[in-house]
Amino acid sequence: MLTDAINRCQQRINQHLTAIFDALPVSEPRLQEAMRYGVLLGGKRVRPFLVYSVGEMLGVAAERLDNCAAAIECIHAYSLIHDDLPAMDNDELRRGQPTVHVAFDEATAILAGDALQTLAFELISQETGDFSAQQQLLMIKALANASGYLGMCGGQALDLAATDKEIPLSELTRLHRLKTGALIRCAVQLAVIAANVDAQQRQQLLAYADAIGLAFQVQDDILDITSSTEELGKPQGSDTRSNKSTYPKLLGLAGAKATAEALLKEALSALGNLPYNSRLIAEFARYIIERRV
Amino acid sequence: MLTDAINRCQQRINQHLTAIFDALPVSEPRLQEAMRYGVLLGGKRVRPFLVYSVGEMLGVAAERLDNCAAAIECIHAYSLIHDDLPAMDNDELRRGQPTVHVAFDEATAILAGDALQTLAFELISQETGDFSAQQQLLMIKALANASGYLGMCGGQALDLAATDKEIPLSELTRLHRLKTGALIRCAVQLAVIAANVDAQQRQQLLAYADAIGLAFQVQDDILDITSSTEELGKPQGSDTRSNKSTYPKLLGLAGAKATAEALLKEALSALGNLPYNSRLIAEFARYIIERRV
Repeated sequence: MLTDAINRCQQRINQHLTAIFDALPVSEPRLQEAMRYGVLLGGKRVRPFLVYSVGEMLGVAAERLDNCAAAIECIHAYSLIHDDLPAMDNDELRRGQPTVHVAFDEATAILAGDALQTLAFELISQETGDFSAQQQLLMIKALANASGYLGMCGGQALDLAATDKEIPLSELTRLHRLKTGALIRCAVQLAVIAANVDAQQRQQLLAYADAIGLAFQVQDDILDITSSTEELGKPQGSDTRSNKSTYPKLLGLAGAKATAEALLKEALSALGNLPYNSRLIAEFARYIIERRV
Repeated sequence: MLTDAINRCQQRINQHLTAIFDALPVSEPRLQEAMRYGVLLGGKRVRPFLVYSVGEMLGVAAERLDNCAAAIECIHAYSLIHDDLPAMDNDELRRGQPTVHVAFDEATAILAGDALQTLAFELISQETGDFSAQQQLLMIKALANASGYLGMCGGQALDLAATDKEIPLSELTRLHRLKTGALIRCAVQLAVIAANVDAQQRQQLLAYADAIGLAFQVQDDILDITSSTEELGKPQGSDTRSNKSTYPKLLGLAGAKATAEALLKEALSALGNLPYNSRLIAEFARYIIERRV
């Protein structure tokens, strides 16, 4: 059931993103190709999945959430393109394919990331009639907060500062809450804004999001040492080689696994007494810490 | 009168931007410093001036436009930071000071640009009560359109593609309408949205903006060969050395000057029968093509 739902969501978001790029005039072909390549390179589509599945649980049809899901994926894709740059993590492979600056060139990769970030805000500000202007404004604010200095960009700055030195667990947790967690939280938040749920349910759903956001990163750290390069689509052990602090390094493999389990429990308990059928997103929380890629 | 107005506007926007950065928590000090440095390095503040002065002409108080002016300047600053990067124009001086990647490092410069772009959208989406949600949404849309693939980023892509080869005048014009013109048009557009003016006046004001946006770039090209490095705050003749097409190269210096004059006339004629006191922005149009820096 979960696998079907994940596949359906991947198809849906890939189709919608493709339609968005097909609708752009081919005025700057190389830039457009790089943007498309960066965002359609594949990936699990965790953030769109959360937008759609939390939305569905709350009674918001997928059609109304397409632009939200696409926007958050554009932000995610832009961050990967820039993180992969030589001046940043200098990664040449992503999901088994050349990264954007390798497939194109550095200048185009910088620009494609920039334009994808803009596109995200363009998508959410479109007048589709799906939501009130007030709701759209809240969505834009949520996306900006999650992406900028106080969110993802801040997390990436922390990450740069933490390379080649050991940081304490509290700092590693803060890093990941910003770098990965903020956008995962935002995915849930977009669905919550779309559905206009009350403050208490909102809080529970965001607690779920915070727990799986961090669990996602703990599992990523675990996979970096337990998975193969083929499974990962990027070089296995790259965290170790780049001297980054990780959960397994600070807690040992067993400690990291226990942390992931504790976060899963936290996520499930947050869903506990919600008056919705949360089975799918509960399964998804388990998938987050049991996935092999 | 114009000089006073320009100075007042520079002070106002610098104070507002400083207040914005002072209000940010210093959680990522290096990133924050780089963002602040990039946006407060000085500059003519052409875009904020247009937001404020067109706004004032239309009866919108400056206080209500602070976030719009700051947002558009954040977009402008981010684009300069990224354009200066080694993989792009590789410029080490900007306004007589080291560029962000020189003063900090490349990774921080990429990130500071990214976070400044996000900050722009954050600022316009803030609930200040100054405008209706509908107006704010239109502003966000205008800013995103002007900044992204169909605007500034597209222009930069064209610019990259045009380096080291001669492009025809029509293509050079398109390049600059996108790379510089779109954001200058957007500055006027933000004031127009703030004032809720009717469609016909809107069209005239945007025609004014389009003309001065292009004139601005023609004059920039002229200054690159007629000004000194000290006046420019960046190496004189850099367009020539980097083999970029410019108006003087395609039209000769006299031809470029005639183009600037023709665009000034176009701008003034667009203001012609507007029922507002457009003296200040008319003077500003003249300043655009007569400035020495």
